[in-house]
Amino acid sequence: MRLSQTFAKTSKTLAGEGDSLNYQLLTRGAFVDQLMAGVYTYLPLGLRVLRKIENIVREEMDRLGAEEILMPMLHPKEPWVKTGGWDSIDVLFKIKSRTGNDYALGQSEEEVVSPLVLSRAQSYKQYPVKVYQIHWKFRDELRAKSGIMRGREFYMKDMYSFHTNQEDFDAFYKEAKEAYLRVFDRLGLVAKVTEASGGAFSEKVSYEFEVLTDAGEDVIYYCDDCDFCVEDEIAKVKPGDECPRCGKGKLKEAKSAEVGNVFDLGQKYGKAFDLGFVDDKDQKQYPIVGCYGIGISRVMGVLVEKYADEKGIAWPESVAPAQVHIVRLGNQDEVVEAADKLYSELRDAGVEALYDDRDESAGAKFADADLIGVPVRLAVSRRTLEEGSAEWKRRNEEESSLVKLGDVLKKLT
Amino acid sequence: MRLSQTFAKTSKTLAGEGDSLNYQLLTRGAFVDQLMAGVYTYLPLGLRVLRKIENIVREEMDRLGAEEILMPMLHPKEPWVKTGGWDSIDVLFKIKSRTGNDYALGQSEEEVVSPLVLSRAQSYKQYPVKVYQIHWKFRDELRAKSGIMRGREFYMKDMYSFHTNQEDFDAFYKEAKEAYLRVFDRLGLVAKVTEASGGAFSEKVSYEFEVLTDAGEDVIYYCDDCDFCVEDEIAKVKPGDECPRCGKGKLKEAKSAEVGNVFDLGQKYGKAFDLGFVDDKDQKQYPIVGCYGIGISRVMGVLVEKYADEKGIAWPESVAPAQVHIVRLGNQDEVVEAADKLYSELRDAGVEALYDDRDESAGAKFADADLIGVPVRLAVSRRTLEEGSAEWKRRNEEESSLVKLGDVLKKLT
Repeated sequence: MRLSQTFAKTSKTLAGEGDSLNYQLLTRGAFVDQLMAGVYTYLPLGLRVLRKIENIVREEMDRLGAEEILMPMLHPKEPWVKTGGWDSIDVLFKIKSRTGNDYALGQSEEEVVSPLVLSRAQSYKQYPVKVYQIHWKFRDELRAKSGIMRGREFYMKDMYSFHTNQEDFDAFYKEAKEAYLRVFDRLGLVAKVTEASGGAFSEKVSYEFEVLTDAGEDVIYYCDDCDFCVEDEIAKVKPGDECPRCGKGKLKEAKSAEVGNVFDLGQKYGKAFDLGFVDDKDQKQYPIVGCYGIGISRVMGVLVEKYADEKGIAWPESVAPAQVHIVRLGNQDEVVEAADKLYSELRDAGVEALYDDRDESAGAKFADADLIGVPVRLAVSRRTLEEGSAEWKRRNEEESSLVKLGDVLKKLT
Repeated sequence: MRLSQTFAKTSKTLAGEGDSLNYQLLTRGAFVDQLMAGVYTYLPLGLRVLRKIENIVREEMDRLGAEEILMPMLHPKEPWVKTGGWDSIDVLFKIKSRTGNDYALGQSEEEVVSPLVLSRAQSYKQYPVKVYQIHWKFRDELRAKSGIMRGREFYMKDMYSFHTNQEDFDAFYKEAKEAYLRVFDRLGLVAKVTEASGGAFSEKVSYEFEVLTDAGEDVIYYCDDCDFCVEDEIAKVKPGDECPRCGKGKLKEAKSAEVGNVFDLGQKYGKAFDLGFVDDKDQKQYPIVGCYGIGISRVMGVLVEKYADEKGIAWPESVAPAQVHIVRLGNQDEVVEAADKLYSELRDAGVEALYDDRDESAGAKFADADLIGVPVRLAVSRRTLEEGSAEWKRRNEEESSLVKLGDVLKKLT
């Protein structure tokens, strides 16, 4: 991608005051554009990051044996009445159509997935069923701040599993928690498995995956010696206490952001729709259902909060909008030619490259490279060409070094 | 994908009566599940087809040099008031939020893309700008029938181009029309470029890409000798007339489905938002804007209508949910072993394969293969294994032949 040719250029002026760090950096870096609070356009660079996060999540869900589907966002009122959500969920957007019908906008999909699966899986032989989607959801938030970390419209992976018995559910629930830790590890995030309330979904304890950040809206108490972690709202302990799990560590308090959750929904949804399966004794049973979310767009915001410094974003390699950011310094013929050639060679080799071919000052170009946060910056100037080289610098290191033009590809891969 | 393991199995009972052929076949074949009229879940096989159509469209838009972005579906009221759409567009879904704000659900994105681009492209030097997205849209239809061909929620590619002058616009408009014909050709569709009304978007003539099918809702008059084609609503000719373009052919009447359109929007949107660019004489100008749609989910429905026979769907190779459909006949050890091996070998070689490993009759399995409509069916039975072979049959041919197991991959690729 040539930066001279994109309409979505970096900008100091388009970002208003206030809101969060991720809002500021993602707006200035031309990753997103805020249409209104909590609702964003994803610009070319932002869309690349979103797709990379999405694909990592998809790979791990596929590895769990879950089937990918895509459910509607526009829902009829009826299933929401059956589960009680129509009246009890205050963030549910409701629409009155000109045909007189009432609709809801999906904020979670239990109301759709339960009848979908249970109308098909009528025999115990068809269980377990595990389905997921990666799709947009809506919440009528009173306040949407924190940039893309809390959206009125947001991108999520939601998986649902259906089991004939608690034992089978528990085994998969454990597998899913492990898959989640793999996802966050690949995304460059350390997520704490945190005991939390089941909220509107379940009376049981649920687990949230919490990333420590002052930009988060949750408060957790965690052990400084083992993996014990609990949300303050349901905690029977307090900061400073001895850890109830290991008995060695002390509990600390921290702000954190929820990037994923897993819920044991029990038999609630089968009962709400009176849909179940016939077991091996020809008896009707309600399945045990689990629900597993990962906030894709929220993860993108959290990554910015975790990986930003005073100069801008520093994306982990796994989700960076490109692998390398070529900066052309000067517009002398030989510089243009060498930088153009480097860009084409890398592209031909399948390397994702940003190419700053604009007529801007070196200072402005380096500042933009730091703001955009691609892992490797390669500067090409008359001076580096005298050595047959480009200047190689990692976003998260101070030192730079010259690398021969012919060695760039090898060094990148 | 093993058919024994998917929850989304073919079904004769889940499809209700009535509606269209694409609804019946896509439902019976477990490609989609209707949540309500005009709103569908895409099941694993349906999602594969949708993604293939989407990727062909994406490749051709990228080739045009357009930048991919993703705009919100939830819109504030204000831009819709500025363009007049809030009161004049009857299919616009409107939402009253609990915060008192009014929102619209996007049914097209001129109201979002115009301020987005024009706030950034303020100098003539930044033009032309070409952006597109592939995203879901909503229409408050009075009646949603015709299966996935007319959705209340539907998947579209919409591109927008911004130009400093009519000549530049005209040149790109022509390029875009050619790209559209390439898209439809790759999708296996013959689309007629049809003069049509600009509708709510433009006072100028627009072009619709129409595919002849009795399942369509449009009526066109086309020349049987040249490429002249006009929508009945704006036609100054009638069926049986001599063709006004070539003077040789006769005009025929046909029902057709619109799969794409291109609009010259003129300066309407720049003026509505009072946003423009500064030209090379330092004068403020409004850009010429074009809008270019392709209905991704509708194309999927049209493909079914065009490529179905009495047995089911027959997908073109470019969009088929898999390249090959392996049918295991019998459950003797050697048959299971050989079919399993064939499936793994093809998968390892990157071939997309469905594998019918269920314990069903040969008749039921062959009927499902015809219903699902993968281009090549490969049956493995004790009889074919006696010849070291599988039975090879194309969906659109009557004859079958034996192919040595070791030659299958070569024959497929």
